[in-house]
Parts: sequence; C-alpha cells; structure tokens
Amino acid sequence: MVNTSGASGRIAVDAMGGDLGPAEVVAAVKLALHQYPALNPITLVGHEAELNPLIALAGLAQEQRLSVFHASEVVTMDDKPLNALKKKKDSSMVRAIELVKNREAGVVVSCGNTGALMAGGTLRLRTMEGVARPALAAICPRQGGHFVLIDAGANPEAKAEHLVHNAIMGSHYCRVMLGIKSPRVGLMTIGTEEGKGNALITETHDLLRRVGDVVNYAGPIEGFHVFAEHVDVVVCDGFVGNIMLKTVEATAKAVSKWLKAEIKGNPLRLCGAMLAKGAFKALKEKGSYETYGGSPLLGVNGVVIIAHGSSSALAIRNAVRVAMETFSVKVNTRIEEAMANLATKEAAVE
Amino acid sequence: MVNTSGASGRIAVDAMGGDLGPAEVVAAVKLALHQYPALNPITLVGHEAELNPLIALAGLAQEQRLSVFHASEVVTMDDKPLNALKKKKDSSMVRAIELVKNREAGVVVSCGNTGALMAGGTLRLRTMEGVARPALAAICPRQGGHFVLIDAGANPEAKAEHLVHNAIMGSHYCRVMLGIKSPRVGLMTIGTEEGKGNALITETHDLLRRVGDVVNYAGPIEGFHVFAEHVDVVVCDGFVGNIMLKTVEATAKAVSKWLKAEIKGNPLRLCGAMLAKGAFKALKEKGSYETYGGSPLLGVNGVVIIAHGSSSALAIRNAVRVAMETFSVKVNTRIEEAMANLATKEAAVE
Repeated sequence: MVNTSGASGRIAVDAMGGDLGPAEVVAAVKLALHQYPALNPITLVGHEAELNPLIALAGLAQEQRLSVFHASEVVTMDDKPLNALKKKKDSSMVRAIELVKNREAGVVVSCGNTGALMAGGTLRLRTMEGVARPALAAICPRQGGHFVLIDAGANPEAKAEHLVHNAIMGSHYCRVMLGIKSPRVGLMTIGTEEGKGNALITETHDLLRRVGDVVNYAGPIEGFHVFAEHVDVVVCDGFVGNIMLKTVEATAKAVSKWLKAEIKGNPLRLCGAMLAKGAFKALKEKGSYETYGGSPLLGVNGVVIIAHGSSSALAIRNAVRVAMETFSVKVNTRIEEAMANLATKEAAVE
Repeated sequence: MVNTSGASGRIAVDAMGGDLGPAEVVAAVKLALHQYPALNPITLVGHEAELNPLIALAGLAQEQRLSVFHASEVVTMDDKPLNALKKKKDSSMVRAIELVKNREAGVVVSCGNTGALMAGGTLRLRTMEGVARPALAAICPRQGGHFVLIDAGANPEAKAEHLVHNAIMGSHYCRVMLGIKSPRVGLMTIGTEEGKGNALITETHDLLRRVGDVVNYAGPIEGFHVFAEHVDVVVCDGFVGNIMLKTVEATAKAVSKWLKAEIKGNPLRLCGAMLAKGAFKALKEKGSYETYGGSPLLGVNGVVIIAHGSSSALAIRNAVRVAMETFSVKVNTRIEEAMANLATKEAAVE
C-alpha cells in the first residue's frame, strides 16, 4: 500500500457505510483492482484497525494502487443527514468527501446513508457555477438499451429552473455514459397535450423550448413512455423520480414473484419453467441495479457516486467502475461548459 | 326498450366516446345485461341513428332494461376539455352527465376523453359538501389482493387538505369495494423518516395524524411498498398517482416483453414456456386493467366512472359493474358522513 498522494483521479471509497459492512467493500475493491487494469488508485476510508486485517486477508497488503485513510466514526443509516455531518466530523463518509474537497481524490463512492451523502456532497463540495441544485442521475434498463432518469431523489422541491438544469446535466451524463450523441430529453408529466400537467411542468416546458440547442428537447412524456424508445433522458423532480424508480423496481419484483407463484402451483408449468429458466435469469440480470451499481450526484464540484445501502461486492465494484468512467470522461467539465452556454443564451434572451 | 324514467339508479353509458366505437359499447352492455340479472336499467347516450341498428343487431331491441337517449355530437380524444364542454352541449358525454345532474340517472360511465369527463363531472355535478377537489380512485392488484390508489390523475396541483380528503374518500371506496373493514392508509413519499419528502408531505402527514379515527393512517410509505401488504390505500396527488399508475403498467409490459424476447431466442426455453404458458396467462389477467374496467371520480354529487379510452367490451362491462356496485353500496353517502365528521373534528381542534 502507498500513502494517499495528490493524484486527483484517486477514488475515495467510504468503507464503513454499507449494510453489509467493510468486508463487502474490501471484496468489491479487490474485484475492481483485478478486473480493471487501468483503474485509478483507490483510498479506502474507514477504521484502520478494522480495514487492515480485511485487506491482508484479501491478499491486498502489497497492492500499490490501494491506500487506507483512517476515520474513527461511522455515519449510520439512522443518522439524520445534517446532524451526522455536524457531529461525526471524523466519519468515513465525511473524510472521504473531504479528500475530494482537498483535491486528494477526484471521486467519492459510498453505499452509506444516502441523505447524508447528498447533503455532504452539496454542502462540502458546493454546487458548480450555474447549477442551482444537484440532482441524482440513475441509469435504467429499457428494451435495447438504457435511459437516464434525473432527478432520482436529490431535490424533492424543484423549481422549473432546476428541472432545466436536470435536463442539461442528464444529457451530458447520457452522452458520455451511454454514448448517445444527441440524447432526446423528455419531460415527465401526465399528458402530452399542451397545457396538461401542472404549473411547474408548463413553466419548465416553456423554458426547455426556449433554451434551444443546449439540450435536444423532445417534449413532454408520460409514464407509458419510459421503457419505449421515445427519449434517452427522463427529466423530473426528485420526488417524482424517486417514487418512479422505487415503483418500477417493486413492479418488476412483484411480476416475477407472481409468475413464480403461478408456476409453482402446477407441475407441468414447473417443468416448463425449468427449461425456460435461462430467460428468467437473463431478465433478472437486465433489471438488476447491480449493473451500474451507483448513481452520480451531478452538479457538485467533484464526482460523488451514491450506491444502494444494501450493495453487494459486485454492485460496489460496478459503482467504482461508474466512478472511474464519470471522472475520466470529464462529465463535470462538459456540464460546466453547457451551463456557461445556457447563461449566454439566457442573457441574449433578456 | 323503454323511455328514460326517473329511476335514480339508472346507469347512463356514453356510447360514443371510446376508441373502439359504439359497437364495442353495445356489446359491453349486452354482456352486462346477460350476466348481471340485478343490473340497474341502462341508458345508452349517443346518436340514435347509429345506436338503434347496433342494438337491433345485438338482439336487444326488446330489452326492457335498456333505453337510448339521443345526442347528436361526440367529444373526441383531441378535444380540449373545457372547450368540449362549452361547445359540444349536445354531445353524448355532456348529455350523459346531465342525466345524472337531473337525477334521471345515478351513474355515468364513459370511456371517452378523460380530461373532459373529469372537468364535466366536476363542473356540472359540483363537488360534495366538504370536498375541495375530486379525485380519481384506481384499484390495483397486489400479492393476495388489491389496493386503492388515489388520486390517479384528477388533481395534479394538490394541497395538503386535498390529500387528506383523498385519504378519506379512498378509505371509504376501499371499505365498500374491497371489503376491508378499516383500511390502512399510506402517504406516498420518498423516505419514511420524519421530515423526509417535501413541504406538501410534511403538512399532509401532520394533518393526517391529527384527524384521528376519521381514517386509519399508517404513515408515510415509499415506492417499494406499493405491492407489499403494508397499506390498503395509497394516497398521493394526481400528478404523482398518474405517473405511478402508467409507469407500473409500462414496467409490467416491459418485463413480460423482455421475458418473451429471451424465451424466443432459444428452442429449449420456448418449449418450456409452452408448458408454463398458463402461468403467463394468469399473470396477464391479474395485471389487466379490464378486471375493474373503470375508476370513479370521487367527491362529486353523483357517480362518474371513467374507463380507458381503448376499453374492450369486457372492460366496459366491468366498468358498468363497478358503476352499479359504487352506486348500490352508497359510497357517496359514506364519504359525505366522513366529511361531516372531519369538519366536526377540525372545529373542535380550532
């Protein structure tokens, strides 16, 4: 192991926050180090006395790309976000965010308390020039590919301006992560006719039409359209986005459970299901949150990747991959440029 | 056929508004008349010259429980709601609503333009004493039963008071339609800890805790919980509810489509799927909107049942059944009593 040095692409991994504990995080880091030869150096942030034996056990004691940064406290899932930031200054989460703030790392990955991580990322790293509120971008599967849902839960009290920023940030994330050159942006609402929805939607729709080529705005969309190939970026506020995301997950699980219950009630069906089980497995993989593992909190100075609290080693490894990719493709630089472009356009309109 | 008489339980069916045309509606009415011996009398509202031959063809010309009320115009799916109500005074939808207003019918069923039907129901029939805004109640499947989602799209700009009214109306609809004695009511939000969500949720949560036994309030719930057996009534505003409902439907369809695509790619799986196809069929039936066919717009003076625009005869037949049940169990009377009870409690608090 080496000491934390000034490499700005370093990935600071909060080793303590997940439901499955630091052993799962160490296992994830081992996977990442083995499978991604070009991986940026990693700093595990957490209690040294706990981490060092786990690192030794994983055979990583001599790993040049791995270091440990000691932090004596842990933000728990039950901690109130602002309280945790204030009281647990030596927690693994706060220390990991500070590594990014102090430019000792470029990225922080955590599967700890989501609210605390969002608040910490926003307050310690500050929002980028031009961005009013950060937003969480989630990559979701659809027929033949993926789409970006933004905001997945960071800002539940959004104004029209925030939704326009979401559209811009989501477009750039989509462009670099999914390789779509000019992502079509849809505004989530409850009817595609002019004037449907609510006041927030009407105002956002007007703003998005006015910003012109800053984003490729395709118009309003409905819940029916999310899995169709209508748009590549689904824009909504954090309240609606979080409910959508969790409802989609719940629906997919419920459908799968009901199908299994129907199959189990009948020996012929059970026999058929055995033959078709590869299809069920493929479906499960397609729908798994593990594929992307983590979602970035876009709009802050630095890359903050938020992973599920219950993340497995595989999910955390993928979150580390997302972190590395988000950093290396310079998503933030592109967003900053777009925000400057938007400011110029707005100035021209006024 | 008989003339429309003053029977207040009469069901006025808008025969012209659906995507599949009046023949589908006549087929639905035929099914209902044959299958429900205790069915209330039905009045088909629409163009006589179109309806009479269809009725004769269906062998219903001598049916004592069926009458026709002539209306020369049709509200189309593209009509703007308020425009349609104002300009198409002799439309089948407006005439059907008026039959309820004039107490010549107790119920109106339509698979026409949803926006126009909601606006027409609200403006012509007026909201009940104590109810600020009407709400659309949808019955959705879950493991081992069903739950009520309210509001599914009537009021996209809700205040806390409206959500409390949704909780009360949804509880009574759940009680009588699903036979649950004391339905547990959940408030849809994005985190179940105190203070999570947004200002609307915080205010609604406080109000619901204060109204005491007017509803059986179980607290905030998340998207994860909708298909679990946590609550029997899911309360949200019409913006969130409509997006949830359409997203759930889209997810279920996407999952089924992906599974089929996976199965088709492999002969062994295909063979297995043939054996298990009964399970897929059962699942499709469980998830089908056709089972309930229509959702009531609760909170207006009269029963307004809104069916899918693309409703099949089976779906419309079921909407007619829902209409009959909603009327006969006196959902409106129960809601009126509860609103009076709420007003008493609020007066005591002040």
